[in-house]
Amino acid sequence: MKTLVVGANGQIGKHLVKFIQNSGSHTAKAMIRSKEQAGYFEELGAETAVVDLEGEIEDIAKAAEGVDAIVFTAGSGPHTGKDKTIMVDLDGAVKTIEAAKIANVKRFIMVSSFDTSRQAIQSAPPGFAPYVVAKHYADEWLRRTDLEYTIVHPGALTNDAGTGQVEAAVEVERGSVPREDVANVIFGCIGSATTIGKEFQVVSGPTSIREALQKI
Amino acid sequence: MKTLVVGANGQIGKHLVKFIQNSGSHTAKAMIRSKEQAGYFEELGAETAVVDLEGEIEDIAKAAEGVDAIVFTAGSGPHTGKDKTIMVDLDGAVKTIEAAKIANVKRFIMVSSFDTSRQAIQSAPPGFAPYVVAKHYADEWLRRTDLEYTIVHPGALTNDAGTGQVEAAVEVERGSVPREDVANVIFGCIGSATTIGKEFQVVSGPTSIREALQKI
Repeated sequence: MKTLVVGANGQIGKHLVKFIQNSGSHTAKAMIRSKEQAGYFEELGAETAVVDLEGEIEDIAKAAEGVDAIVFTAGSGPHTGKDKTIMVDLDGAVKTIEAAKIANVKRFIMVSSFDTSRQAIQSAPPGFAPYVVAKHYADEWLRRTDLEYTIVHPGALTNDAGTGQVEAAVEVERGSVPREDVANVIFGCIGSATTIGKEFQVVSGPTSIREALQKI
Repeated sequence: MKTLVVGANGQIGKHLVKFIQNSGSHTAKAMIRSKEQAGYFEELGAETAVVDLEGEIEDIAKAAEGVDAIVFTAGSGPHTGKDKTIMVDLDGAVKTIEAAKIANVKRFIMVSSFDTSRQAIQSAPPGFAPYVVAKHYADEWLRRTDLEYTIVHPGALTNDAGTGQVEAAVEVERGSVPREDVANVIFGCIGSATTIGKEFQVVSGPTSIREALQKI
């Protein structure tokens, strides 16, 4: 099973490609912005595709040709300029969704943020609200497709080492989670039919990732 | 027939409320951000409603109660901060659409920008692209409702006096158009059943607005 990782050069993306390549049974194709980012992925034996997310849908679709799943984990993050928020977190996500349709890739895993509901938009601090709006519409666009989607809503991301243990459900109490564990959760979703059509929040917790995903 | 004008204090909005109030047969309700903006509209005999477009959908819905049509002409414009672009041009528009549903107002006229197509996003200069993206998704959200919508795509806006003459069609050659004429076109749409479910570009031209709208 081959997975296109969009935003592979982000921290979650790097962990994810490593999990996939080390699995022995899956392979990753890392979609990156520039050739200079390729080294890490080539060392892991992963394919790479250099595509600008602000470019044409057709270029993303070409990168997606022949893969079995797409993970969207690109993101400007909440602290970049708001122009990038709208061009990457919203429009880049939607273009990737449209590219999935063109390339006939049914399985799509979206890395969203913890809470992208209307309520979350309205209660967000002014500087953070545009980011929540962008993620809100990207998630909503995906829900309205007939793709086999999973939307992952991670808590506050940390760079701590992963523990392999999480709490995951439609709603969990706000908390933090290592990026490595988020990547591990995404990796678990790729091969898990039970997460199709679902979305869930995830933070650090007491349950093994495999077990947590079975209960979603 | 009563129309809620969202973004009434903008230049198009002000012209529009004047056209409506001067018609004799229609009335306007001006949705404005602050009480200080009310004077102009009160002098025209129009109702006002003070609502923050970055606030709750329910507040917009309350302002929309009992009106027959809603015009969305609020807009940060392409030159404000990109946080406002996403909060007003995209999210403010979508919230107004949702408010229309809640208030059971079927008729909805969206003032968009000249070209909000995918192609327009891809070919826009970097500083302008986020604005096109915001308008693109707002238009798309409206198309996917069952509201009786009209989407007006005006050319480059000027402050010249209106001439009452335009060119309007699904696609017209790029050109300019006075804001006063755009307001006049919107006013024409309010009472025109033939523009329901349609969208068109409009620039200055040789045809009277009434005739131009009949051909849409």
